[in-house]
Amino acid sequence: MKKTVTAEILAIGDELLYGQIQDTNSLWISQELDKIGVRVVRRTTVGDNRDDILQAFDAAEKAADIVLMTGGLGPTADDLTKPLLAEYFNCAISLVPEALEAVRTFFERRGRELTETNKLQAHLPTKCTYVPNEVGTAPGMWFEERNTVWMSMPGVPHEMKKLMSDFVLPKLQTLFDLPVIFHRLVKTVGIGESWLSDLIKEWEEALPPHVRLAYLPSLGEVKLRLTAFGDNEEFVRAAVEEQLAKVKPLIAKYIYGYDKISLQEAVGQLLKERRKTVAFAESCSGGYIAHLITSIAGSSAYFQGAVVPYQNEIKSKLLGVSPSTLGTHGAVSEETVIEMAYGVREQFHADFGIASSGIAGPSGETTGKPVGTVWIACSYPGGVTTKLLQLTTDRTINIHLTAISALNLLRTTITDVME
Amino acid sequence: MKKTVTAEILAIGDELLYGQIQDTNSLWISQELDKIGVRVVRRTTVGDNRDDILQAFDAAEKAADIVLMTGGLGPTADDLTKPLLAEYFNCAISLVPEALEAVRTFFERRGRELTETNKLQAHLPTKCTYVPNEVGTAPGMWFEERNTVWMSMPGVPHEMKKLMSDFVLPKLQTLFDLPVIFHRLVKTVGIGESWLSDLIKEWEEALPPHVRLAYLPSLGEVKLRLTAFGDNEEFVRAAVEEQLAKVKPLIAKYIYGYDKISLQEAVGQLLKERRKTVAFAESCSGGYIAHLITSIAGSSAYFQGAVVPYQNEIKSKLLGVSPSTLGTHGAVSEETVIEMAYGVREQFHADFGIASSGIAGPSGETTGKPVGTVWIACSYPGGVTTKLLQLTTDRTINIHLTAISALNLLRTTITDVME
Repeated sequence: MKKTVTAEILAIGDELLYGQIQDTNSLWISQELDKIGVRVVRRTTVGDNRDDILQAFDAAEKAADIVLMTGGLGPTADDLTKPLLAEYFNCAISLVPEALEAVRTFFERRGRELTETNKLQAHLPTKCTYVPNEVGTAPGMWFEERNTVWMSMPGVPHEMKKLMSDFVLPKLQTLFDLPVIFHRLVKTVGIGESWLSDLIKEWEEALPPHVRLAYLPSLGEVKLRLTAFGDNEEFVRAAVEEQLAKVKPLIAKYIYGYDKISLQEAVGQLLKERRKTVAFAESCSGGYIAHLITSIAGSSAYFQGAVVPYQNEIKSKLLGVSPSTLGTHGAVSEETVIEMAYGVREQFHADFGIASSGIAGPSGETTGKPVGTVWIACSYPGGVTTKLLQLTTDRTINIHLTAISALNLLRTTITDVME
Repeated sequence: MKKTVTAEILAIGDELLYGQIQDTNSLWISQELDKIGVRVVRRTTVGDNRDDILQAFDAAEKAADIVLMTGGLGPTADDLTKPLLAEYFNCAISLVPEALEAVRTFFERRGRELTETNKLQAHLPTKCTYVPNEVGTAPGMWFEERNTVWMSMPGVPHEMKKLMSDFVLPKLQTLFDLPVIFHRLVKTVGIGESWLSDLIKEWEEALPPHVRLAYLPSLGEVKLRLTAFGDNEEFVRAAVEEQLAKVKPLIAKYIYGYDKISLQEAVGQLLKERRKTVAFAESCSGGYIAHLITSIAGSSAYFQGAVVPYQNEIKSKLLGVSPSTLGTHGAVSEETVIEMAYGVREQFHADFGIASSGIAGPSGETTGKPVGTVWIACSYPGGVTTKLLQLTTDRTINIHLTAISALNLLRTTITDVME
């Protein structure tokens, strides 16, 4: 057996200790290290305090082969990570011309002036390897000191993630002899965790010991993670694929994709493959479905556009919903949402028109229509499919679940109704 | 000055280290301790591993007056917290009849059978005070040992929260002479951390020792946190408000609100107070501004609706953008975005029309317009304001920053241009 490679994750910042922000970085880093076979043995959070940070360095060095730290890298006086790393490794801090150039370019691109404080970002401990941060001003710092690997990253999540993905994870994989682990994610929508579990129970109980299953539920979706452990790539891949082939037929209609694909990406691919287009009329979802679809690069190939008709007048004017339908059935009704879906398809010359109308909450209930009542519809060349959702009293959750259900209605209309 | 009472929060469980679940407990405990004036000095997460847990006990005892721990209390063999607490405090584990009675009642109420494994939950270290868990089966355990207060709680969030609220927090307040702490957040937009720091440098350097400042940057925004420590509520409130009154005039035009308010909420309030309405024409922001605005309950009072015109044809048809403007200047131009802003205001009968058009990326650059080039405009009864943004090559970041800049353009147009 190979030696287990261990890591400690160290988050630095008073704002974390005082609970003003959730530390999402440490969770994300844990997940990424797990995927490449590095065992996280401890996570520690300390404040912007000299003694606590130095003591954390010391404890981390004793506990792990790799120390990944985030935060405390701002240019202001309360940020201590950089000077304390220099102190801990007993080295000076000096200007790195390449880093200064990067900071200068970063500001120039944004048409902003470079201040003296900004320039300090380019001064780094002499024992570190400078790691460029392409999406921010605080550079990454990599050390191989005291028989341990150290990486310091900014606490801003997207900056940290880019440094991890582009530099740290590939570097760790070349530097250490890591066990071979292979994961695949099966992504499902339209079914809850316990129902899914009932459908695949027998298969799950028959899994061999070198293959593990985890349920990863999130709002409106459940991911199944299959993990195999072994000594070589071929073995672990085959072990996962074998189980995947067995579980697929049991839950086929709920699977929208595998691994990194998102529901909006999967739906986009379906449209692209068939050279079809879509438009949205989003009342209660308020533009969130359009946001999800347009978050995917290249979506203009299949997305025509959207209308958010937050007043009834606009539903009639831009989407052609008949005032008598609105008067008789109300805005939150199957009749209205069908006319919206049809209208937006016409107006945008799209193949599919998706509409939502509902009571997002937390207030606004009417007789027979409690908060969380939502109608969605999908108009397509051959007809229309609709669905009534009974959601929660939480506005944010309702908007999110409406969007997922609408995207899933589009998906199933494309794959089941039209084929 | 009172002695600062310190706490360490210790989360125990493999599932946390491997990133399978987010540790929301530690954040919540941090916030509650902060409110009662206990200073959290460290948070640590360790796995279900004997040596790591014992070492964490040892380190916590050295670091803090209070150690609050969650997890590792299940009745199965991989849960180690209870036996290790007994080992650490050098005492036996024995049956607590009162605890057995509670477990029995818990199962009876749910019509479930009490197994031998369940009964083990009622066996506790002899040195602990048994703390009943009314909503679960793993009891709380309170120790006052080695000049430190220790509380072990289950990892299930609602069980932990009930034990904290009903028992731990009141108990800590009677046991320790706690200082009073008061925080306020100043929320700014449209200025980076280092420029903000330059503007308030002199004020920051003159802060009295009982008031602390922290910069909390996030994508497109910077929050300033002012914290005062003292003996009574009146003193700390006055100390924070005094500094707030001094810093406000230095950065007034960047402040959109205080404490919990979000930018979209602040902009919504401005519109509501003035009985004005807004509509959006979102090309590169793809519906995200509408999503942010509609995430606020009651937004239908000031939000008329939005169009996401993802094809040029729609920009002309629904927003009245002249095809010759599109032909001469292109979709990403000041001329086009002005016509979009004007058109959406007309179409939706709104007081303000906000428009965005840009190259969100990661590809799509044209001559003179690199990825990240974005034009935004705000049309209002008396004219139009515009802004050119030079953002990044990351699509998600560009969409987010465009939305924040557009909301800020609306804010400043309302407050500066119109008044």
